[in-house]
Amino acid sequence: MSIYFSGRLRSLVPYVPGEQPQKKPYLKLNTNESPFPPPPSVAEAVAAEANRLQLYSDPDSRALVEQLAASKGVKPTQVLVGNGSDEVLSFAFQAFADETHPLCFPDITYGFYPVLAELYRIPYTCIPLREDFTVDPLPYIGCGRTVVLANPNAPTGIALPLETIEKIVRANPETVVLIDEAYVDFGGESAILLTEKYENLLVVQTFSKSRSLAGGRLGFAVGSEKLIADLHTVRNSFNPYNVNRMTAAAGVAALREQAYYDENCRAIIENRAWTTEALHALGFDVLPSQANFLFARSERIGGETLYLELKQRGILVRHFGASRIAAYNRITIGTRVQMERLIDTIKTILEENDP
Amino acid sequence: MSIYFSGRLRSLVPYVPGEQPQKKPYLKLNTNESPFPPPPSVAEAVAAEANRLQLYSDPDSRALVEQLAASKGVKPTQVLVGNGSDEVLSFAFQAFADETHPLCFPDITYGFYPVLAELYRIPYTCIPLREDFTVDPLPYIGCGRTVVLANPNAPTGIALPLETIEKIVRANPETVVLIDEAYVDFGGESAILLTEKYENLLVVQTFSKSRSLAGGRLGFAVGSEKLIADLHTVRNSFNPYNVNRMTAAAGVAALREQAYYDENCRAIIENRAWTTEALHALGFDVLPSQANFLFARSERIGGETLYLELKQRGILVRHFGASRIAAYNRITIGTRVQMERLIDTIKTILEENDP
Repeated sequence: MSIYFSGRLRSLVPYVPGEQPQKKPYLKLNTNESPFPPPPSVAEAVAAEANRLQLYSDPDSRALVEQLAASKGVKPTQVLVGNGSDEVLSFAFQAFADETHPLCFPDITYGFYPVLAELYRIPYTCIPLREDFTVDPLPYIGCGRTVVLANPNAPTGIALPLETIEKIVRANPETVVLIDEAYVDFGGESAILLTEKYENLLVVQTFSKSRSLAGGRLGFAVGSEKLIADLHTVRNSFNPYNVNRMTAAAGVAALREQAYYDENCRAIIENRAWTTEALHALGFDVLPSQANFLFARSERIGGETLYLELKQRGILVRHFGASRIAAYNRITIGTRVQMERLIDTIKTILEENDP
Repeated sequence: MSIYFSGRLRSLVPYVPGEQPQKKPYLKLNTNESPFPPPPSVAEAVAAEANRLQLYSDPDSRALVEQLAASKGVKPTQVLVGNGSDEVLSFAFQAFADETHPLCFPDITYGFYPVLAELYRIPYTCIPLREDFTVDPLPYIGCGRTVVLANPNAPTGIALPLETIEKIVRANPETVVLIDEAYVDFGGESAILLTEKYENLLVVQTFSKSRSLAGGRLGFAVGSEKLIADLHTVRNSFNPYNVNRMTAAAGVAALREQAYYDENCRAIIENRAWTTEALHALGFDVLPSQANFLFARSERIGGETLYLELKQRGILVRHFGASRIAAYNRITIGTRVQMERLIDTIKTILEENDP
């Protein structure tokens, strides 16, 4: 740390993303990427744009925003796009939370939320998940705080039903309720259409998971026109050209390929069921996931030990140190072949570990 | 504005970028883009990356950072890359300025600085340029503030010599001096190598202008290892995957094409001289520019009138409303053919305006 680093930030502990090894070819089941590449039309759209890069992108990303709005059944003025949903979350935290609107979110959820809150010095409260890792809606009812809920939640994969989300939104008319739907396409219910009804609801989604664009960085928010206008004020004060030409073109092309992505999601859901069953057969506890990952533990092997053993054998999964979940690993669902390799490797590890 | 918008930001007036018309084909001389497309190797690198977009980008952008460091003669740990230099500036403002390190910058400079300062609620002072629009270095000497200087400055195009920059850096050991070199490749002197000597110097550059990647969004900072580490702390708390795969690949490819870009810069400098002379011949005052634009006024026509007349004839230049510079327009230097069209059009306008 330099002597120049702002006193505001000196205690900041940055978010640590999952490992992204650049050399050794791992089977990457650690950052919830799709095992399927984007369709050829996305690559073609990107290539076409690469010859125009001397020109700025449209700061309003109009073509993308209009198509996104049409695909979600909302108005373009209800949509904001960003450089990944992390950037969108950052705009939303800045816009809708502060000392007088402190944040609340579960104790076990996306680890980026508390980091963002610290960055912007927003007070926050972590509300414990129930013993079974489900969200107890009661503490969020009329809580007087800006609510942030990942639905499905990460790293648990557990989803809340839409009616519970609506109950929480309805019960907090004074504050924004942000629903982070990064994983919604793998079996959850989106709250997007509720934005017509509730001015305090903001839904955030990403192209990183179901749409195979993690490396393209594209996320978006849907909300009432007023909420979205506020997010544009923040965006235009921070980085008006936040979405580059190639990513915008990739997004437009991706929105035309719904059938391809639906089929990918179907395959992931099928492989998730297969993997859940295989893990059960090995004696694992597996949380009921509506996401493209599983959160699992076994009494036969510690969470960190399994993570390290898998890594040594060329498979990366994600282990978190927090005591409440240290026994677990988060495992991204890949292709059936990848899942078979994972299960075979876990079998070998368990046998060696506990002969 | 929604009732939920944070009290911190309610008075925020966002930056307004130059017009980016998506429909009518204008001759765009308003946002300092390069008239030259990126070389074919950049488009090829982008296309290759487009088939891997399901995988996250390297959060440390190692390949790009290493090559950038090598090309600038510094260590990789002295380099941070961002989603355009606007994002890099934003990280730097957050990291190195606050109530106890207020900002100062010229009254006439990049209009984004005061917006960023407002966004992060950093107190700032605007120091007037001299009558001739040059920077008076004296008020910056030992000023006890975080200094931000665009060099060459925008929208004036006027550059400070490196020895003056060094004097300011040396005289402010307690605060960071940020030199924004967005336009340095068109005739200015870079302060990058001074970062070896001064721990408080941060230099920011962009691929948007001389490297024809405005639509790719790539900027970077070079500084002491400690300053750069602080910027990474902010970056990793905000958006750890801030540079997408396609842009990182474009940057790597661009760094291998120095000869192409050198030739483009030479052409711009030549066209700048030609345009300056042509404007002089029409009776314009033209500030001495080291950038890829000119800042010019004429007693024969008001700044806003000329801007509107040019727009009506399909040519966009940039007019700023601030009273001190309202008589001027900022004109991007394009190809020789584009400059000839500009001069012919101005001639026509002047004749019609003042027969």
